[in-house]
Amino acid sequence: MAITLYELAGADADRRFSPYSWRVRMALLHKGLSFQTEPVRFSEKDKIAFSGQRLVPVLVDGERIVTDSFAIATYLEDTYRDAPSLFGGARGLARFGTHVVDSLLMSSLVGFIAADVFAVIAEQDRAYFRESREKRLGMSLESFTADRDKRLPAFRESLEPIRRTVREQKFLCGAEPGWVDYAAFGCFQWARCSSPYQLLATDDPLYDWRERMLDLFGGEGRKAIGFPV
Amino acid sequence: MAITLYELAGADADRRFSPYSWRVRMALLHKGLSFQTEPVRFSEKDKIAFSGQRLVPVLVDGERIVTDSFAIATYLEDTYRDAPSLFGGARGLARFGTHVVDSLLMSSLVGFIAADVFAVIAEQDRAYFRESREKRLGMSLESFTADRDKRLPAFRESLEPIRRTVREQKFLCGAEPGWVDYAAFGCFQWARCSSPYQLLATDDPLYDWRERMLDLFGGEGRKAIGFPV
Repeated sequence: MAITLYELAGADADRRFSPYSWRVRMALLHKGLSFQTEPVRFSEKDKIAFSGQRLVPVLVDGERIVTDSFAIATYLEDTYRDAPSLFGGARGLARFGTHVVDSLLMSSLVGFIAADVFAVIAEQDRAYFRESREKRLGMSLESFTADRDKRLPAFRESLEPIRRTVREQKFLCGAEPGWVDYAAFGCFQWARCSSPYQLLATDDPLYDWRERMLDLFGGEGRKAIGFPV
Repeated sequence: MAITLYELAGADADRRFSPYSWRVRMALLHKGLSFQTEPVRFSEKDKIAFSGQRLVPVLVDGERIVTDSFAIATYLEDTYRDAPSLFGGARGLARFGTHVVDSLLMSSLVGFIAADVFAVIAEQDRAYFRESREKRLGMSLESFTADRDKRLPAFRESLEPIRRTVREQKFLCGAEPGWVDYAAFGCFQWARCSSPYQLLATDDPLYDWRERMLDLFGGEGRKAIGFPV
Protein backbone atom coordinates (compact mmCIF):
# COMPACT_ATOMS: atom_id res chain seq x y z
CA MET A 1 0.00 0.00 0.00
CA ALA A 2 1.29 3.43 -0.92
CA ILE A 3 2.01 6.01 1.76
CA THR A 4 1.61 9.70 0.97
CA LEU A 5 2.72 12.56 3.21
CA TYR A 6 1.06 15.92 2.58
CA GLU A 7 3.53 18.66 3.50
CA LEU A 8 3.52 22.44 3.63
CA ALA A 9 5.49 23.92 0.71
CA GLY A 10 6.98 27.27 -0.25
CA ALA A 11 7.01 29.22 -3.51
CA ASP A 12 9.32 26.46 -4.74
CA ALA A 13 7.07 23.43 -4.25
CA ASP A 14 10.14 21.43 -3.24
CA ARG A 15 10.88 23.70 -0.30
CA ARG A 16 9.30 21.87 2.65
CA PHE A 17 9.66 23.81 5.85
CA SER A 18 6.98 22.55 8.23
CA PRO A 19 8.55 21.39 11.52
CA TYR A 20 5.78 18.86 12.03
CA SER A 21 6.18 17.42 8.55
CA TRP A 22 9.89 17.03 9.15
CA ARG A 23 9.14 15.02 12.27
CA VAL A 24 6.96 12.67 10.27
CA ARG A 25 9.35 12.47 7.33
CA MET A 26 12.17 11.40 9.67
CA ALA A 27 9.85 8.96 11.42
CA LEU A 28 8.94 7.33 8.09
CA LEU A 29 12.62 7.00 7.21
CA HIS A 30 13.38 5.62 10.68
CA LYS A 31 10.74 2.97 10.08
CA GLY A 32 12.28 2.22 6.69
CA LEU A 33 9.00 2.89 4.91
CA SER A 34 8.82 4.16 1.36
CA PHE A 35 6.53 7.07 0.74
CA GLN A 36 5.76 9.89 -1.61
CA THR A 37 5.10 13.47 -0.62
CA GLU A 38 2.59 15.98 -1.87
CA PRO A 39 3.21 19.73 -1.51
CA VAL A 40 0.45 21.85 0.01
CA ARG A 41 0.67 25.63 0.00
CA PHE A 42 -1.24 27.71 2.54
CA SER A 43 -3.71 28.57 -0.24
CA GLU A 44 -4.07 24.94 -1.31
CA LYS A 45 -5.67 23.53 1.81
CA ASP A 46 -8.43 22.07 -0.38
CA LYS A 47 -5.90 19.35 -1.19
CA ILE A 48 -6.25 18.04 2.36
CA ALA A 49 -9.97 18.71 2.79
CA PHE A 50 -10.47 14.93 2.66
CA SER A 51 -8.78 14.74 6.09
CA GLY A 52 -11.61 16.71 7.68
CA GLN A 53 -9.28 19.42 9.00
CA ARG A 54 -6.91 22.04 7.63
CA LEU A 55 -3.49 21.29 9.14
CA VAL A 56 -0.51 19.54 7.62
CA PRO A 57 1.06 17.05 7.89
CA VAL A 58 -1.51 14.53 6.77
CA LEU A 59 -0.48 10.93 6.30
CA VAL A 60 -2.41 8.66 3.98
CA ASP A 61 -1.55 4.99 4.26
CA GLY A 62 -3.82 3.00 1.98
CA GLU A 63 -7.27 3.59 3.41
CA ARG A 64 -6.02 5.24 6.60
CA ILE A 65 -5.87 9.00 7.03
CA VAL A 66 -3.94 10.26 10.06
CA THR A 67 -3.34 13.87 11.15
CA ASP A 68 -1.21 15.46 13.91
CA SER A 69 2.46 14.52 13.93
CA PHE A 70 2.47 12.74 17.28
CA ALA A 71 -0.66 10.79 16.32
CA ILE A 72 1.06 9.85 13.06
CA ALA A 73 4.15 8.65 14.96
CA THR A 74 1.90 6.60 17.24
CA TYR A 75 0.10 5.16 14.21
CA LEU A 76 3.39 4.20 12.55
CA GLU A 77 4.72 2.67 15.77
CA ASP A 78 1.61 0.54 16.26
CA THR A 79 1.19 -0.42 12.62
CA TYR A 80 4.80 -1.20 11.73
CA ARG A 81 5.84 -3.06 14.83
CA ASP A 82 8.62 -5.04 13.20
CA ALA A 83 10.37 -1.89 11.99
CA PRO A 84 12.77 -0.03 14.32
CA SER A 85 10.93 1.55 17.24
CA LEU A 86 10.42 5.31 17.34
CA PHE A 87 9.67 5.42 21.07
CA GLY A 88 11.95 2.66 22.34
CA GLY A 89 9.13 1.36 24.50
CA ALA A 90 8.72 4.70 26.26
CA ARG A 91 5.77 6.31 24.50
CA GLY A 92 4.70 8.33 27.53
CA LEU A 93 8.15 9.79 27.99
CA ALA A 94 8.33 10.51 24.24
CA ARG A 95 5.17 12.56 24.60
CA PHE A 96 6.73 14.51 27.47
CA GLY A 97 9.87 15.03 25.37
CA THR A 98 7.74 16.35 22.51
CA HIS A 99 6.04 18.89 24.76
CA VAL A 100 9.43 19.94 26.10
CA VAL A 101 10.85 20.45 22.63
CA ASP A 102 7.75 22.36 21.54
CA SER A 103 8.03 24.59 24.58
CA LEU A 104 11.76 25.21 24.16
CA LEU A 105 11.79 25.77 20.43
CA MET A 106 8.53 26.46 18.65
CA SER A 107 7.53 29.87 19.93
CA SER A 108 11.04 31.22 20.34
CA LEU A 109 12.04 30.22 16.80
CA VAL A 110 9.17 32.24 15.36
CA GLY A 111 10.93 35.32 16.71
CA PHE A 112 13.97 34.55 14.58
CA ILE A 113 12.51 33.31 11.33
CA ALA A 114 8.99 34.71 10.86
CA ALA A 115 10.02 37.38 8.36
CA ASP A 116 12.23 34.92 6.47
CA VAL A 117 9.41 32.41 6.14
CA PHE A 118 7.36 35.17 4.53
CA ALA A 119 10.07 35.58 1.90
CA VAL A 120 10.08 31.93 0.81
CA ILE A 121 6.35 31.23 0.60
CA ALA A 122 4.31 31.53 -2.56
CA GLU A 123 3.05 34.92 -3.69
CA GLN A 124 -0.57 33.84 -3.29
CA ASP A 125 0.08 32.76 0.33
CA ARG A 126 1.60 36.01 1.53
CA ALA A 127 -1.43 38.10 2.39
CA TYR A 128 -2.91 35.24 4.43
CA PHE A 129 0.39 34.48 6.15
CA ARG A 130 1.12 38.09 7.04
CA GLU A 131 -2.37 38.83 8.28
CA SER A 132 -2.82 35.68 10.36
CA ARG A 133 0.68 35.81 11.91
CA GLU A 134 0.68 39.52 12.60
CA LYS A 135 -2.68 39.24 14.30
CA ARG A 136 -1.28 36.49 16.53
CA LEU A 137 1.99 38.34 17.20
CA GLY A 138 0.41 41.74 17.68
CA MET A 139 2.99 43.42 15.41
CA SER A 140 4.51 43.19 11.96
CA LEU A 141 6.67 40.19 11.05
CA GLU A 142 9.58 42.55 10.54
CA SER A 143 9.20 44.22 13.94
CA PHE A 144 8.89 40.84 15.59
CA THR A 145 12.22 39.61 14.26
CA ALA A 146 14.06 42.96 14.24
CA ASP A 147 15.85 42.48 17.57
CA ARG A 148 16.70 38.82 17.05
CA ASP A 149 20.43 39.40 17.48
CA LYS A 150 19.74 40.68 20.97
CA ARG A 151 17.63 37.64 21.78
CA LEU A 152 20.10 35.12 20.40
CA PRO A 153 22.25 34.65 23.54
CA ALA A 154 19.20 33.98 25.74
CA PHE A 155 17.79 31.59 23.13
CA ARG A 156 21.04 29.64 22.99
CA GLU A 157 21.18 29.56 26.79
CA SER A 158 17.63 28.22 26.93
CA LEU A 159 18.72 25.15 24.96
CA GLU A 160 20.93 23.99 27.83
CA PRO A 161 18.89 20.86 28.72
CA ILE A 162 19.22 19.63 25.13
CA ARG A 163 22.88 20.63 25.01
CA ARG A 164 23.73 18.86 28.27
CA THR A 165 22.16 15.69 26.95
CA VAL A 166 24.02 15.63 23.65
CA ARG A 167 27.26 16.31 25.46
CA GLU A 168 26.76 12.98 27.21
CA GLN A 169 25.25 10.90 24.45
CA LYS A 170 25.00 11.13 20.66
CA PHE A 171 21.27 11.68 20.50
CA LEU A 172 18.50 12.87 22.81
CA CYS A 173 17.21 9.30 22.80
CA GLY A 174 20.64 7.80 23.54
CA ALA A 175 23.13 6.07 21.25
CA GLU A 176 20.58 6.02 18.43
CA PRO A 177 18.10 8.68 17.31
CA GLY A 178 14.39 8.36 18.08
CA TRP A 179 11.19 10.35 18.00
CA VAL A 180 12.27 13.11 20.39
CA ASP A 181 15.35 13.75 18.24
CA TYR A 182 13.08 14.07 15.21
CA ALA A 183 10.78 16.39 17.16
CA ALA A 184 13.68 18.73 17.96
CA PHE A 185 15.28 18.34 14.56
CA GLY A 186 11.99 19.22 12.87
CA CYS A 187 12.13 22.61 14.57
CA PHE A 188 15.66 23.24 13.36
CA GLN A 189 14.72 22.12 9.84
CA TRP A 190 11.84 24.59 9.88
CA ALA A 191 14.48 27.29 10.42
CA ARG A 192 17.05 25.84 8.04
CA CYS A 193 14.57 25.44 5.18
CA SER A 194 13.23 28.96 5.48
CA SER A 195 15.87 31.25 6.98
CA PRO A 196 19.55 32.11 6.45
CA TYR A 197 19.84 33.17 10.09
CA GLN A 198 22.51 31.28 12.04
CA LEU A 199 20.85 29.99 15.20
CA LEU A 200 23.59 27.70 16.47
CA ALA A 201 27.25 28.55 16.90
CA THR A 202 29.54 26.08 15.16
CA ASP A 203 31.29 25.23 18.44
CA ASP A 204 28.01 24.34 20.16
CA PRO A 205 27.58 20.61 20.94
CA LEU A 206 24.05 21.12 19.64
CA TYR A 207 25.49 22.08 16.28
CA ASP A 208 27.30 18.74 16.20
CA TRP A 209 24.10 16.93 17.15
CA ARG A 210 22.30 18.70 14.30
CA GLU A 211 25.09 17.69 11.93
CA ARG A 212 24.52 14.06 12.96
CA MET A 213 20.81 14.51 12.36
CA LEU A 214 21.47 16.06 8.94
CA ASP A 215 23.54 13.01 8.01
CA LEU A 216 20.83 10.46 8.84
CA PHE A 217 19.12 8.46 6.10
CA GLY A 218 21.51 9.42 3.34
CA GLY A 219 21.52 13.08 4.30
CA GLU A 220 17.78 13.63 3.89
CA GLY A 221 17.79 16.78 6.01
CA ARG A 222 20.98 18.14 4.46
CA LYS A 223 19.71 17.71 0.90
CA ALA A 224 16.53 19.66 1.59
CA ILE A 225 16.14 23.03 -0.11
CA GLY A 226 17.13 25.61 2.47
CA PHE A 227 20.06 27.53 3.89
CA PRO A 228 23.18 25.63 4.98
CA VAL A 229 23.62 27.41 8.32
CA MET B 1 22.82 -7.69 51.24
CA ALA B 2 21.72 -4.58 53.04
CA ILE B 3 21.18 -1.32 51.15
CA THR B 4 21.81 1.99 52.90
CA LEU B 5 20.90 5.40 51.52
CA TYR B 6 22.75 8.37 53.02
CA GLU B 7 20.48 11.40 52.88
CA LEU B 8 20.70 15.05 53.76
CA ALA B 9 18.82 15.81 57.00
CA GLY B 10 17.53 18.86 58.83
CA ALA B 11 17.57 19.88 62.50
CA ASP B 12 15.11 17.05 62.95
CA ALA B 13 17.16 14.13 61.66
CA ASP B 14 13.99 12.65 60.17
CA ARG B 15 13.42 15.68 57.95
CA ARG B 16 14.90 14.60 54.60
CA PHE B 17 14.69 17.36 52.03
CA SER B 18 17.31 16.61 49.38
CA PRO B 19 15.71 16.48 45.92
CA TYR B 20 18.32 14.02 44.73
CA SER B 21 17.79 11.72 47.70
CA TRP B 22 14.07 11.74 47.04
CA ARG B 23 14.73 10.59 43.50
CA VAL B 24 16.74 7.66 44.78
CA ARG B 25 14.31 6.84 47.58
CA MET B 26 11.44 6.60 45.09
CA ALA B 27 13.63 4.58 42.71
CA LEU B 28 14.42 2.06 45.47
CA LEU B 29 10.71 1.74 46.27
CA HIS B 30 9.89 1.39 42.57
CA LYS B 31 12.35 -1.50 42.42
CA GLY B 32 10.75 -3.02 45.50
CA LEU B 33 14.06 -3.05 47.35
CA SER B 34 14.27 -2.79 51.10
CA PHE B 35 16.74 -0.28 52.45
CA GLN B 36 17.65 1.72 55.47
CA THR B 37 18.55 5.40 55.48
CA GLU B 38 21.20 7.33 57.32
CA PRO B 39 20.82 11.06 57.99
CA VAL B 40 23.72 13.34 57.07
CA ARG B 41 23.72 16.98 58.08
CA PHE B 42 25.78 19.54 56.17
CA SER B 43 28.28 19.47 59.06
CA GLU B 44 28.40 15.67 59.11
CA LYS B 45 29.93 15.05 55.72
CA ASP B 46 32.55 12.89 57.41
CA LYS B 47 29.88 10.21 57.49
CA ILE B 48 30.18 9.87 53.72
CA ALA B 49 33.93 10.42 53.46
CA PHE B 50 34.21 6.71 52.56
CA SER B 51 32.55 7.55 49.24
CA GLY B 52 35.50 9.69 48.19
CA GLN B 53 33.34 12.81 47.69
CA ARG B 54 31.12 15.12 49.71
CA LEU B 55 27.69 15.00 48.08
CA VAL B 56 24.58 13.09 49.11
CA PRO B 57 22.88 10.89 48.19
CA VAL B 58 25.28 7.99 48.58
CA LEU B 59 24.02 4.47 48.08
CA VAL B 60 25.79 1.54 49.68
CA ASP B 61 24.69 -1.86 48.43
CA GLY B 62 26.83 -4.51 50.09
CA GLU B 63 30.32 -3.78 48.82
CA ARG B 64 29.21 -1.27 46.21
CA ILE B 65 29.29 2.48 46.80
CA VAL B 66 27.46 4.62 44.24
CA THR B 67 27.09 8.41 44.17
CA ASP B 68 25.08 10.82 41.96
CA SER B 69 21.37 10.15 41.71
CA PHE B 70 21.28 9.34 38.00
CA ALA B 71 24.26 7.00 38.39
CA ILE B 72 22.46 5.33 41.28
CA ALA B 73 19.34 4.89 39.16
CA THR B 74 21.46 3.38 36.41
CA TYR B 75 23.14 1.07 38.91
CA LEU B 76 19.78 -0.09 40.29
CA GLU B 77 18.38 -0.62 36.79
CA ASP B 78 21.37 -2.71 35.72
CA THR B 79 21.68 -4.65 38.97
CA TYR B 80 18.03 -5.42 39.66
CA ARG B 81 16.90 -6.33 36.18
CA ASP B 82 13.99 -8.48 37.24
CA ALA B 83 12.44 -5.68 39.28
CA PRO B 84 10.18 -3.10 37.55
CA SER B 85 12.13 -0.93 35.14
CA LEU B 86 12.89 2.69 36.03
CA PHE B 87 13.68 3.74 32.47
CA GLY B 88 11.22 1.57 30.54
CA GLY B 89 13.98 0.72 28.08
CA ALA B 90 14.61 4.38 27.25
CA ARG B 91 17.64 5.27 29.36
CA GLY B 92 18.86 7.96 26.98
CA LEU B 93 15.51 9.70 26.96
CA ALA B 94 15.34 9.40 30.76
CA ARG B 95 18.64 11.28 30.94
CA PHE B 96 17.22 14.02 28.70
CA GLY B 97 14.11 14.14 30.89
CA THR B 98 16.30 14.51 33.98
CA HIS B 99 18.17 17.46 32.48
CA VAL B 100 14.86 19.04 31.50
CA VAL B 101 13.46 18.68 34.99
CA ASP B 102 16.66 20.04 36.53
CA SER B 103 16.55 23.01 34.20
CA LEU B 104 12.85 23.73 34.79
CA LEU B 105 12.82 23.26 38.54
CA MET B 106 16.11 23.25 40.40
CA SER B 107 17.32 26.82 40.09
CA SER B 108 13.90 28.43 40.07
CA LEU B 109 12.81 26.58 43.23
CA VAL B 110 15.80 27.97 45.12
CA GLY B 111 14.24 31.40 44.67
CA PHE B 112 11.13 30.29 46.53
CA ILE B 113 12.49 28.13 49.33
CA ALA B 114 16.09 29.13 50.13
CA ALA B 115 15.22 31.10 53.27
CA ASP B 116 12.82 28.37 54.45
CA VAL B 117 15.48 25.68 54.06
CA PHE B 118 17.70 27.77 56.34
CA ALA B 119 14.98 27.64 58.99
CA VAL B 120 14.73 23.84 59.07
CA ILE B 121 18.40 22.87 59.04
CA ALA B 122 20.44 22.17 62.16
CA GLU B 123 21.87 25.06 64.15
CA GLN B 124 25.43 23.91 63.45
CA ASP B 125 24.76 23.89 59.67
CA ARG B 126 23.45 27.41 59.39
CA ALA B 127 26.60 29.47 59.12
CA TYR B 128 27.94 27.20 56.38
CA PHE B 129 24.62 27.12 54.53
CA ARG B 130 24.11 30.87 54.65
CA GLU B 131 27.64 31.71 53.63
CA SER B 132 27.93 29.21 50.76
CA ARG B 133 24.46 29.96 49.33
CA GLU B 134 24.70 33.72 49.67
CA LYS B 135 28.05 33.69 47.94
CA ARG B 136 26.50 31.74 45.06
CA LEU B 137 23.36 33.90 44.93
CA GLY B 138 25.14 37.22 45.36
CA MET B 139 22.66 38.36 48.01
CA SER B 140 21.09 37.31 51.30
CA LEU B 141 18.74 34.30 51.38
CA GLU B 142 15.98 36.62 52.53
CA SER B 143 16.49 39.13 49.71
CA PHE B 144 16.61 36.29 47.21
CA THR B 145 13.20 34.96 48.19
CA ALA B 146 11.57 38.30 49.14
CA ASP B 147 9.78 38.83 45.82
CA ARG B 148 8.69 35.23 45.34
CA ASP B 149 5.01 36.11 45.10
CA LYS B 150 5.81 38.26 42.10
CA ARG B 151 7.75 35.43 40.47
CA LEU B 152 5.11 32.78 41.15
CA PRO B 153 2.95 33.30 38.01
CA ALA B 154 5.98 33.06 35.70
CA PHE B 155 7.21 29.97 37.54
CA ARG B 156 3.85 28.26 37.19
CA GLU B 157 3.72 29.21 33.52
CA SER B 158 7.19 27.72 32.98
CA LEU B 159 5.89 24.32 34.07
CA GLU B 160 3.64 24.11 31.01
CA PRO B 161 5.48 21.21 29.30
CA ILE B 162 5.04 19.09 32.44
CA ARG B 163 1.45 20.25 32.86
CA ARG B 164 0.53 19.47 29.25
CA THR B 165 1.89 15.97 29.66
CA VAL B 166 0.00 15.15 32.85
CA ARG B 167 -3.20 16.47 31.29
CA GLU B 168 -2.87 13.73 28.70
CA GLN B 169 -1.53 10.88 30.81
CA LYS B 170 -1.28 10.07 34.51
CA PHE B 171 2.47 10.34 34.79
CA LEU B 172 5.33 11.93 32.86
CA CYS B 173 6.39 8.41 31.91
CA GLY B 174 2.88 7.36 30.82
CA ALA B 175 0.29 5.25 32.59
CA GLU B 176 2.80 4.28 35.28
CA PRO B 177 5.43 6.40 37.03
CA GLY B 178 9.10 6.07 36.17
CA TRP B 179 12.43 7.76 36.76
CA VAL B 180 11.54 11.13 35.20
CA ASP B 181 8.50 11.34 37.47
CA TYR B 182 10.76 10.70 40.45
CA ALA B 183 13.21 13.31 39.17
CA ALA B 184 10.47 15.95 39.04
CA PHE B 185 8.82 14.77 42.24
CA GLY B 186 12.14 14.96 44.07
CA CYS B 187 12.24 18.69 43.34
CA PHE B 188 8.74 19.18 44.70
CA GLN B 189 9.59 17.11 47.79
CA TRP B 190 12.60 19.33 48.37
CA ALA B 191 10.14 22.22 48.60
CA ARG B 192 7.47 20.35 50.53
CA CYS B 193 9.89 19.05 53.16
CA SER B 194 11.45 22.44 53.80
CA SER B 195 8.97 25.19 52.99
CA PRO B 196 5.36 26.10 53.77
CA TYR B 197 5.16 28.13 50.56
CA GLN B 198 2.39 27.00 48.18
CA LEU B 199 3.98 26.50 44.80
CA LEU B 200 1.12 24.80 42.98
CA ALA B 201 -2.49 25.98 42.82
CA THR B 202 -4.93 23.27 43.87
CA ASP B 203 -6.72 23.43 40.49
CA ASP B 204 -3.48 22.84 38.56
CA PRO B 205 -3.27 19.42 36.81
CA LEU B 206 0.27 19.35 38.17
CA TYR B 207 -1.13 19.46 41.68
CA ASP B 208 -3.15 16.34 40.88
CA TRP B 209 -0.06 14.66 39.46
CA ARG B 210 1.83 15.49 42.64
CA GLU B 211 -1.04 14.06 44.69
CA ARG B 212 -0.70 10.82 42.72
CA MET B 213 3.03 10.85 43.39
CA LEU B 214 2.44 11.47 47.10
CA ASP B 215 0.18 8.41 47.19
CA LEU B 216 2.74 6.02 45.71
CA PHE B 217 4.29 3.25 47.79
CA GLY B 218 1.95 3.58 50.71
CA GLY B 219 2.16 7.37 50.78
CA GLU B 220 5.93 7.54 51.29
CA GLY B 221 6.13 11.14 50.11
CA ARG B 222 3.04 12.23 51.97
CA LYS B 223 4.24 10.78 55.27
CA ALA B 224 7.54 12.65 55.11
CA ILE B 225 8.12 15.40 57.63
CA GLY B 226 7.33 18.63 55.83
CA PHE B 227 4.54 21.04 55.02
CA PRO B 228 1.32 19.72 53.51
CA VAL B 229 0.98 22.34 50.76
